[in-house]
Amino acid sequence: MKVSILMGSDSDYDVVVAAIDVLKAFDIDCDVRVLSAHRTPHETVKYVSDAEQNGSEVFIGCAGKAAHLAGVIASVTTLPVIGLPIKTSLMGGLDSLLSIVQMPSGVPVATVAVNGAANAGLLAVQMLALKYPQLKEKLVKYKADMAAQVAEKDSRIAARLNGGE
Amino acid sequence: MKVSILMGSDSDYDVVVAAIDVLKAFDIDCDVRVLSAHRTPHETVKYVSDAEQNGSEVFIGCAGKAAHLAGVIASVTTLPVIGLPIKTSLMGGLDSLLSIVQMPSGVPVATVAVNGAANAGLLAVQMLALKYPQLKEKLVKYKADMAAQVAEKDSRIAARLNGGE
Amino acid sequence: MKVSILMGSDSDYDVVVAAIDVLKAFDIDCDVRVLSAHRTPHETVKYVSDAEQNGSEVFIGCAGKAAHLAGVIASVTTLPVIGLPIKTSLMGGLDSLLSIVQMPSGVPVATVAVNGAANAGLLAVQMLALKYPQLKEKLVKYKADMAAQVAEKDSRIAARLNGGE
Amino acid sequence: MKVSILMGSDSDYDVVVAAIDVLKAFDIDCDVRVLSAHRTPHETVKYVSDAEQNGSEVFIGCAGKAAHLAGVIASVTTLPVIGLPIKTSLMGGLDSLLSIVQMPSGVPVATVAVNGAANAGLLAVQMLALKYPQLKEKLVKYKADMAAQVAEKDSRIAARLNGGE
Amino acid sequence: MKVSILMGSDSDYDVVVAAIDVLKAFDIDCDVRVLSAHRTPHETVKYVSDAEQNGSEVFIGCAGKAAHLAGVIASVTTLPVIGLPIKTSLMGGLDSLLSIVQMPSGVPVATVAVNGAANAGLLAVQMLALKYPQLKEKLVKYKADMAAQVAEKDSRIAARLNGGE
Amino acid sequence: MKVSILMGSDSDYDVVVAAIDVLKAFDIDCDVRVLSAHRTPHETVKYVSDAEQNGSEVFIGCAGKAAHLAGVIASVTTLPVIGLPIKTSLMGGLDSLLSIVQMPSGVPVATVAVNGAANAGLLAVQMLALKYPQLKEKLVKYKADMAAQVAEKDSRIAARLNGGE
Amino acid sequence: MKVSILMGSDSDYDVVVAAIDVLKAFDIDCDVRVLSAHRTPHETVKYVSDAEQNGSEVFIGCAGKAAHLAGVIASVTTLPVIGLPIKTSLMGGLDSLLSIVQMPSGVPVATVAVNGAANAGLLAVQMLALKYPQLKEKLVKYKADMAAQVAEKDSRIAARLNGGE
Amino acid sequence: MKVSILMGSDSDYDVVVAAIDVLKAFDIDCDVRVLSAHRTPHETVKYVSDAEQNGSEVFIGCAGKAAHLAGVIASVTTLPVIGLPIKTSLMGGLDSLLSIVQMPSGVPVATVAVNGAANAGLLAVQMLALKYPQLKEKLVKYKADMAAQVAEKDSRIAARLNGGE
Repeated sequence: MKVSILMGSDSDYDVVVAAIDVLKAFDIDCDVRVLSAHRTPHETVKYVSDAEQNGSEVFIGCAGKAAHLAGVIASVTTLPVIGLPIKTSLMGGLDSLLSIVQMPSGVPVATVAVNGAANAGLLAVQMLALKYPQLKEKLVKYKADMAAQVAEKDSRIAARLNGGE
Repeated sequence: MKVSILMGSDSDYDVVVAAIDVLKAFDIDCDVRVLSAHRTPHETVKYVSDAEQNGSEVFIGCAGKAAHLAGVIASVTTLPVIGLPIKTSLMGGLDSLLSIVQMPSGVPVATVAVNGAANAGLLAVQMLALKYPQLKEKLVKYKADMAAQVAEKDSRIAARLNGGE
Repeated sequence: MKVSILMGSDSDYDVVVAAIDVLKAFDIDCDVRVLSAHRTPHETVKYVSDAEQNGSEVFIGCAGKAAHLAGVIASVTTLPVIGLPIKTSLMGGLDSLLSIVQMPSGVPVATVAVNGAANAGLLAVQMLALKYPQLKEKLVKYKADMAAQVAEKDSRIAARLNGGE
Repeated sequence: MKVSILMGSDSDYDVVVAAIDVLKAFDIDCDVRVLSAHRTPHETVKYVSDAEQNGSEVFIGCAGKAAHLAGVIASVTTLPVIGLPIKTSLMGGLDSLLSIVQMPSGVPVATVAVNGAANAGLLAVQMLALKYPQLKEKLVKYKADMAAQVAEKDSRIAARLNGGE
Repeated sequence: MKVSILMGSDSDYDVVVAAIDVLKAFDIDCDVRVLSAHRTPHETVKYVSDAEQNGSEVFIGCAGKAAHLAGVIASVTTLPVIGLPIKTSLMGGLDSLLSIVQMPSGVPVATVAVNGAANAGLLAVQMLALKYPQLKEKLVKYKADMAAQVAEKDSRIAARLNGGE
Repeated sequence: MKVSILMGSDSDYDVVVAAIDVLKAFDIDCDVRVLSAHRTPHETVKYVSDAEQNGSEVFIGCAGKAAHLAGVIASVTTLPVIGLPIKTSLMGGLDSLLSIVQMPSGVPVATVAVNGAANAGLLAVQMLALKYPQLKEKLVKYKADMAAQVAEKDSRIAARLNGGE
Repeated sequence: MKVSILMGSDSDYDVVVAAIDVLKAFDIDCDVRVLSAHRTPHETVKYVSDAEQNGSEVFIGCAGKAAHLAGVIASVTTLPVIGLPIKTSLMGGLDSLLSIVQMPSGVPVATVAVNGAANAGLLAVQMLALKYPQLKEKLVKYKADMAAQVAEKDSRIAARLNGGE
Repeated sequence: MKVSILMGSDSDYDVVVAAIDVLKAFDIDCDVRVLSAHRTPHETVKYVSDAEQNGSEVFIGCAGKAAHLAGVIASVTTLPVIGLPIKTSLMGGLDSLLSIVQMPSGVPVATVAVNGAANAGLLAVQMLALKYPQLKEKLVKYKADMAAQVAEKDSRIAARLNGGE
C-alpha cells in the first residue's frame, strides 16, 4: 500500500504533514515529494509515471493559488488523484480551491477542504480500503475513536459549565 | 461492483444522468435513489447502512444549495463518498460547492466540479479500479479515446480555418 | 423554558458563550452540548429527539465550514432551529454562512450573522416570549438598555470631541 | 394567530406568495403589505407598532439588494422577525443576503435562504407552534408528507431507470 | 457650513476620525454622533430631522456588516447622504459595502471605499463647494498639495534606489 | 444648473437613460457624452476641464468591468463625481463596482448601486439642491410621490389578496 | 511573425475567434490548435516545444473552469504566454480567471479579461511590435481608429438626444 | 533595454522591489517612479509619453484597490503594459485584480497574480527577449535554476522525512 504525496512548494509541508500522519497511522507507505506543476513539469510527469510503476496507488497533489499540481497528475494517470488546496491570502484560498476542483469532464480530481490535509490522507485510506480489507477495520475504529473524542469534549464542556468559570 | 448514487431532489436527475452513463459504460451497477439529507434523514442514514451491506462500495451524493447529502453519507460510512455540487443561482453554485467540500477533519468528501457529474462517475471508477483490475484497462482506453476526441476536434478546427467560413 | 445549544466543536465555545450569557440573563435554562453532525451523527439525532422530550423548545446549532449541524437538527425536529455560522479563514466564514442559510424548502434554519452568538440567544428569547409573557417585558427592557448604552457612548464621543484629545 | 408579511416592492410578490401559501395551509392569518424601509420609513415603523397592537406575533420582511426592511422591523419590535432575501443579479442575491443576515448584536433577524419564501412561512409556523399546540401536530404531519413526497419521487426515478427512457 | 457624521458604534471612531480631520481642515463644522439604525432607530430619525433644521447640509453615515445607517438617514432626508462602509472580517467588508451601496431607486447613498473616511469627508466638501465658493479654492489647493506629496515620495524612491539601501 | 454624464460605451445608454430622465424631470440641463477612459483618455480629460468651464457642476461617470471613467474624471476636477457601475457577467458587475468605489484617499467617487442610474441622477439633484433652493422643494415632492406610489402598490396587493386571484 | 493560439475545447472557438481576427488584421500568422492541458497533456507539451522551433514567438492559452492550459504552456517555454479566461457559470468565470492569473513566482502568464479575446490578440501584437517595427505604426493607427470610433458613437448619441427618440 | 515601473504609492515599494530585483538580475535598466493615476494624472500621462521617447519598452503599473494605474498607462501608449495588483484587505486584493484585468477591448493590460511582482519583472524580460536574443539564454538558465531549486527542496524534504524531526 503506497500513496504518493506531491506538494508544489516545501512551504506547504506544515499543512501536508497532517496527511502524512494519517497515512502513517494506518501503516501506509507514503512517498513525499516536492514537485511543481509549473517549475518542474517534466519531472512531475515523469514522477507520476514512475510512481505508478513503483506501486503507488493513490496520489495527493497539494498546491496553492493557480494550483495545477493535482490536475497535472490527473492528466497523466488513471489512478485516483486527491487535490488539497492550500490557504492563500486571496479570499482565504478560493483561488486554490477553484483551480483544483473545477476540472473538465474526463479528468476528475477528488478535492478536499482548503488546508484539509488530514482528510486528504483519510480519503486515500478509504480508497485503499476498497482493496485492502485490513484497512476497513482500522477505519471503523478511527471513526469510533473520533466519536469518543467528541464525547469527551462534550463532557469537558458540561463540567466547565457546571463548575462555573 | 456497485455504486450508490443519491440525489437530494429528482430535479437533479438531468445532471446526475451523466454519472450514471459513465458507470454503465464501465459495466458497474448503480443504485440511484432520491433521498434527502433534510427531508428524509432517517431513510438516508438507513439506506447508507443497508447499501454497504448490499455491496455498494462507493457513494455519490449530489445536492445543491446547503448541500449536506454527501456529508450525511460520509458521517455514517467509512466507504469513500463523492460529492457532486449542483449549480444554483447564488454565485453559480458556490453555496453547493462550499457546503460539500469544506468538511471537517475526519470525515472527507471527495468533491468534484459544480455539475461535474461525469467526473463523479469516473472518480468512482478510478476508486473501484484499485480493487478490480479489469477496470484499469478500460480507464486507460477511456483516456486514450478522450485524447483522440480532442485530436479530432483539433483537426476540425484546422479544416475550418483553412477552408474559410 | 429551555434552549438546547449544540456546537460542532469545543473550539466554538468562545463564540457560543455569548449566546449562553444572553439566555442566562433572561433566566432561561440552556443545555450546552458538543455534538458533531459529521463525527457523532447518531448521537446528535438521538440528542435532538431526547431534548424535545425533555422540554427543550428551541435549538441553536453552531458550526463552521461545511456547517451542517443546524440543518441536521432541523431535519429531525419541528421545533425552531437557529443556525449560528462560525467565522473561518475562507472569505471570513462565507462557507459557514451559506452552508447554514441556504436550506431547501420545508426545512428552515433561522440563521444569524457570522459569529453572531448573542443574537442567536436573543432570537431564542424572542421566540420563547411568544409563549412566556414574562420574557416580553424583559425584552422591552433589554431593548431600552441597549438604546441607553448607545446614548451613553454618544455622550462620551461628544465629550471626547469637545475636550480635545 | 397572525403573521405580518412586509415586502419592499410589489415585484417581490411572486416570491413571497409561497410564504403566504404555507401560512394559509396552517390556518394562520397573514397581513400582507407593501412597505419600503427606504421609501416609506415612517409608515413602515408605524405599521410595525400597530401590527403588534393588532395581534401580529411574527414579522416576515422580504427585500432585495440593500435589503434593510427586516432590519428596520427588528429595530422597532421585540417580536421575532424573519428576513427573506430576494434574488438579484449581483452574485445571485448575495447583496440581499448579507444586508439581512449580518445584523449587529442586540437586533437579530432570523434569515432564510435567498428566495426561500416557503421556509420563511414555515419558520413562522414553528415559532407560533411554541405557543399554539394545535400547530405542532400539523407540523409533524407536514414533515411526514414531505418525506412521503420524496419517497414518491424516489419511486418514480426507480421506475424510470428500470423502465428505460 | 455643517456636516453631520453618524456612526453606528463608537468602535468606528478610529476610522471616522479621518473624515472629521478633513472637514476641520476645510473649516467646516461637524456634528459627530453615535446613533444606531438598529438600536436607536427613533433617535436616529429624530436626529436627522433636527439636524436638517439646525443647518446640517450633508450627512455621513458610517457603519459595518448589515450597514443600514446611511440608508436610514437617506430615507428621511432629501439632503445628500454619504455612506462609509466599515471593514469587517467577512470578505474584508463586502457585507458593509453592499448593504450601503445597493440602495433602491429613489433613495441614493453616495458610497465611498471601505474604510475610506478621508474620502467621505472630502466628498462632503466637494458637495458644499457647489454652494460655498471659498471651498473651491481650498479644494484646488488640496489637490495640488496631494500631487506635491506624490512628487516628494517619487523623489524619495529615486534617492533610495540611487543611494542603495 | 448642468450635469455632465459620461459613458464609456454607447451600449451603456439604455442604463444611463434613467439618469437623464431624472435630471430632465428636475429641469436640469445635462450634457451626455460617450468618452472612454481607456480609448479616448485625452479627449476625456479635455472634456472634463472644458465642461467645468462651461458650467457643469456635477459629473456622472458610467462604465463597466475595469470601470475607470469616474476615477479619471475625479482625478482632474474638484467637482463632485458620481460613479455608476454597469452590470457585467462577472459576478453581476462586482468588477465594475469595486473598480469605481475603491478609490484611494484624496480622490472620492460617489458610487451608487450597480445599474442604479436613476439614483445617479437623483444624487446629482441632491447635490445641486444645496445651491439651488428651488430643487429642494421638488425633491421633497419627489420623495412624497414615491411614498404615494408605494402606498398605491400596497393597496393593489391588498385588493389582489382579498379579491382572490 | 507567428502566434500560437491553443484552446482547451473547440467550444471556446466562438470566443477565441476575436483574437484570430486581430492577429489577421495585423498580418500575423497564427496557428490555432485544440489541445487540452488535462486530456492531451503530452501533445500539448510537445506542441509547445515544436511551435517554438517552428517560429512561434508568443502563445495564447484559452481555457475555462480549472483553466490550466496557459500555465502548462508557460511551464515549458520561456516565450511570453497570454492567458485568456473563458466565462463560466461559476461567478461568471472567476474560476477561470483565478486559475490563470494566480501563477507562482517564476512562471508568469499575462492574463487578460474574462472572454477578452481581442485583447489577447492585441497584447500579442504589442509584444511582437517590440521586435517588428512595422507593427508599431499599425498599433498607433489601431489606437487612433478606436478613438475615432468612440467619437463617432459620441456623435450618434448627441444626434439621438437632440433629435428625440 | 529599459522597463518603466510605476507604483501608485510608495507603500507599494516593498512588493515592487521583487520586480526590480528580477530586472536587475537580467541587466535590464529600470526606471522606478511613484506616480498616481488619480493624484497625479497629468504627470503620469506625461511620464508615459516621455518614457517611450527615452527608450522604455515595457511598462509595469502597480496599484491597489481601484487600481487604475496600469489602465491609464495602457490608454496612452501602444507598448505592452503589465499590471501588478496589490493585496488589499477587501477579499485579499480581488478589487485590485478586477480593476486591472477586466480592461475593455482594445486596451489590454497583461495582468499577473496579486502581489506577483517577481512575475511582473519576469514577464517584462520574456517580452524583451523577443527582441534581445541575449535575454533568451538567461531565461533558459533562470528556468533551469528554478527547477534545480525545487529539486533541492525536494531533497531536503526527503532528508527531513527519513531523518525524523
